[in-house]
Amino acid sequence: MTAAPLTPREAERLAALLKAVAEPTRLRLLSLVAAHEGQEACVCDLTEPVGLSQPTVSHHLKVLVDAGLLEREKRGVWAYYRLVPARLGELSAALLPRA
Amino acid sequence: MTAAPLTPREAERLAALLKAVAEPTRLRLLSLVAAHEGQEACVCDLTEPVGLSQPTVSHHLKVLVDAGLLEREKRGVWAYYRLVPARLGELSAALLPRA
Repeated sequence: MTAAPLTPREAERLAALLKAVAEPTRLRLLSLVAAHEGQEACVCDLTEPVGLSQPTVSHHLKVLVDAGLLEREKRGVWAYYRLVPARLGELSAALLPRA
Repeated sequence: MTAAPLTPREAERLAALLKAVAEPTRLRLLSLVAAHEGQEACVCDLTEPVGLSQPTVSHHLKVLVDAGLLEREKRGVWAYYRLVPARLGELSAALLPRA
């Protein structure tokens, strides 16, 4: 939490970002991508570990891309998802209690 | 995000905690308490800044208490809410991207 109280607008923005991650499957997907080599993974790497269909996994990944937490790149037949550490860091810092 | 992917159970637990804060009014209440002297505030200090009724504010504060992010203490006629920095720190750390 910042030293000054959040404005309504700041609170709306932060809540929207938190809603994107406040979902168990999306948290698992983020952590799977983060743990993958180069912090990048293909949808094909992610469906089996979470035990969900590819369309469902793609939907959750889209929410994370829209929130700026993952970047999507199409290579050949597969889409690859890369972690955006700065965005997660921003979210983490926004919640950090001040001393 | 941790070095190892989150287990389903860890993801459920973290998502529940994130859901408690993924709401604009609750974020504003947390930041108001954090900015208040001694990181503690009375409901009577909080209703006017967020522009909501006392029952609504009390409901949101209860969600934050249930999530362990605030501690509640009744003193006289008012309930006082104190920030639990360790709990917010835990949430912040869980989202921190590893190097």
